[in-house]
Amino acid sequence: MNLDAQWIVGFVDGEGCFHVGISKHSGMTTGFQVLPEFTVVQHERDIQVLFALKQYFGCGVVRKNHDARQCFRVRKLEDLREKIIPFFRKHPLKTRKSVDFHTFCRVVNLMTQNKHLTVEGMAHIRSLAETMNRRGSCSC
Amino acid sequence: MNLDAQWIVGFVDGEGCFHVGISKHSGMTTGFQVLPEFTVVQHERDIQVLFALKQYFGCGVVRKNHDARQCFRVRKLEDLREKIIPFFRKHPLKTRKSVDFHTFCRVVNLMTQNKHLTVEGMAHIRSLAETMNRRGSCSC
Repeated sequence: MNLDAQWIVGFVDGEGCFHVGISKHSGMTTGFQVLPEFTVVQHERDIQVLFALKQYFGCGVVRKNHDARQCFRVRKLEDLREKIIPFFRKHPLKTRKSVDFHTFCRVVNLMTQNKHLTVEGMAHIRSLAETMNRRGSCSC
Repeated sequence: MNLDAQWIVGFVDGEGCFHVGISKHSGMTTGFQVLPEFTVVQHERDIQVLFALKQYFGCGVVRKNHDARQCFRVRKLEDLREKIIPFFRKHPLKTRKSVDFHTFCRVVNLMTQNKHLTVEGMAHIRSLAETMNRRGSCSC
């Protein structure tokens, strides 16, 4: 299946999610861990679309989600920074999901500068994460 | 907002719905009424995307759906036949929603031939409609 860049943008405007998870982690200096991820969830009957996305971006994994749903997921910071983010900068989202995307970019940028390893930086990232995905969790 | 055809296909692969409603209607010879509709539902914050779809296709309406959701809806048979269906024939859907689309086309075709006004034709349409939208109702 060959995907067109604009088809991907439309599909992600509908089904995609830019999410920043924050979880407690006693091993970290700040006491927290930041987990940015880009995900697209589909019913398992459309798993071939998720594999096509994986192939297009050249990164990420396809994993079983809850029930009969499957998820394409990119968590590796380098892949987010060098593959996912440049794609959506070049091909902008049309829905309000673009607001989450821009916040997501800011978090990834702060992590690239290792700001998440400082208490102050982590507080900044947490405040950004709180503004995202207000419709509820969309991680997988 | 200018929409690209492939963006629309991707967005509809994610968020669109081809639905055939069948309701009891004592005024009809067959006792039933067929209501095919193409819909895209979004949170009200993205209502501008729905108006952009309305403008692109040159048909349909944008109406409030339940809660804070809005819906772009095309019900007019002529618009479905001459605008919506030709678009998705030219620009095929990539997900399994394409199966619903092909069934939808068969129903619209049968209605164009007035088959829905006969008991036999209505039985055929009902059997087709039952195979669609198994994920639950998606009308608005």
